[in-house]
Amino acid sequence: MAQARGYRVCVVGLGSMGMGAALSCLRAGLAVSGVEPDAERRRRFLDAGGAAAAASSADLDCGFDAAVVLVVNAAQARAALLGPDGLAPRLPRGAAVMLSCTQSAADAQALAAELEALGLLVLDAPVSGGPVKAEAGEMTVMASGPEAAFERLAPVLDATAAKVYRIGADIGLGATVKVIHQLLAGVHIAAGAEAMALAARAGIPLDLMYDVVTHAAGNSWMFENRMKHVVEGDYAPRSAVDIFVKDLGLVTETGRALKFPLPLASAAFAMFLNASNAGFGREDDCAVIKTFAGISLPGTE
Amino acid sequence: MAQARGYRVCVVGLGSMGMGAALSCLRAGLAVSGVEPDAERRRRFLDAGGAAAAASSADLDCGFDAAVVLVVNAAQARAALLGPDGLAPRLPRGAAVMLSCTQSAADAQALAAELEALGLLVLDAPVSGGPVKAEAGEMTVMASGPEAAFERLAPVLDATAAKVYRIGADIGLGATVKVIHQLLAGVHIAAGAEAMALAARAGIPLDLMYDVVTHAAGNSWMFENRMKHVVEGDYAPRSAVDIFVKDLGLVTETGRALKFPLPLASAAFAMFLNASNAGFGREDDCAVIKTFAGISLPGTE
Repeated sequence: MAQARGYRVCVVGLGSMGMGAALSCLRAGLAVSGVEPDAERRRRFLDAGGAAAAASSADLDCGFDAAVVLVVNAAQARAALLGPDGLAPRLPRGAAVMLSCTQSAADAQALAAELEALGLLVLDAPVSGGPVKAEAGEMTVMASGPEAAFERLAPVLDATAAKVYRIGADIGLGATVKVIHQLLAGVHIAAGAEAMALAARAGIPLDLMYDVVTHAAGNSWMFENRMKHVVEGDYAPRSAVDIFVKDLGLVTETGRALKFPLPLASAAFAMFLNASNAGFGREDDCAVIKTFAGISLPGTE
Repeated sequence: MAQARGYRVCVVGLGSMGMGAALSCLRAGLAVSGVEPDAERRRRFLDAGGAAAAASSADLDCGFDAAVVLVVNAAQARAALLGPDGLAPRLPRGAAVMLSCTQSAADAQALAAELEALGLLVLDAPVSGGPVKAEAGEMTVMASGPEAAFERLAPVLDATAAKVYRIGADIGLGATVKVIHQLLAGVHIAAGAEAMALAARAGIPLDLMYDVVTHAAGNSWMFENRMKHVVEGDYAPRSAVDIFVKDLGLVTETGRALKFPLPLASAAFAMFLNASNAGFGREDDCAVIKTFAGISLPGTE
């Protein structure tokens, strides 16, 4: 932890994942600043010991060793780094930027090229694990980039990640691994919804169907987690339908870029689009089950 | 276990699941006979303590309390029970027949109606868990039928199952639960193959992709089990592509019968048909990944 002393990091985006990462960095003894538009979140971060927080990097002293970008998508990452009042031109040369949003390999490569032209080190490093693991400093990081970027970011990776997968030196590999992971996550949610909808149509009690599947070879992490919401009739968003419209959009975009057929991901993408179009975009992603007509679901009579 | 004494059961089909069930019944002290065309399997069963075994029930004393049918599909079950030299007409009135193959609800209902007309009790009781759990007497049974059938089969269920799901009184519910389970199992194998194929196309090392997914929310039981075979380049069949051609065929048949759309199961069914048509029908079901062109897979150079 010796290297943590005096190390200054800026977390861009104090949402559920970003806040968790920022708090983990604080616990590890790093000097942590935050860029976040929401005043209440900035206050929470400062109360926890944050060195500084602002809605714009123009209002911060930007002599950071590193920045961690945990916004929602590539467009937000680009705006925060290279837009008006963007952070990147204010960083010292040799600072490292960890790009941790879920984005396409092409977007990661384009953004990294511009950052490297400013003399910055870049790590293509999407994360997973959810808010609870982020807050515990136990994210999973899927990273690719030059060895120097890994080294410069070591204090941040030590503080925030339980596991760092080193995928290679090429920017874009990290993004691709995350996109492929999201292919599975999205298809599994949609498949769970399709199976539970069929059970409802066939007159099988959904709690019993859930019990059978979660104790057998048909189970998935997503089935166990999300279909519990369906059984309980609870569509309060932990992760929303529109997140998978975005992520399966990236998956199908990746397939198109590689001219590679993705029959299941394409079908699942259409199911989430259908759900969003029907007005369920901000409900929990398991609300994709509501697009099946002629069935009665718990809590939705 | 008092009721086990003198209880006579006939296991029809001494394949991997049937042999396991038969051995479990022997261990529980039941008098067990077997119907099986393969002489080597009959010998193994007799060596383990089987009371009698024959290729046809015409060669057995059929005064059984119960019969357990563990053949591959509905057609084999019908032939074994009601075909020439079939077992059903030789059973005493009041004996119970446990129908444990994977079949459609319609097939289960049609078969049960004919068996009940002969004065037999019928349990619609598909199983899961694989050969290892079958041999340990720890199958999962998804059962529907009249209470009297459950009672008559209690010694068999006690001997062979770790868990019995009682789905209801109507024949067909058990079959449907199994079919819906197979929807998930089949889609998860196909999704795993699609994801790993995309990883291969994108230049991600497959062992690393496997490691990421199996430690994250994109995991499924089937991904973890079957994609390991892909990583190891091992297509020796534990369960073959053609089994999922059959099972996803039942799934789509169930959707048609209920006029219910199954976009993912239909896409996965097409993928397994494509694999079978390409000559991989008898390989391990993970060989569905071989239908993706332009990728190089471990062990298949």
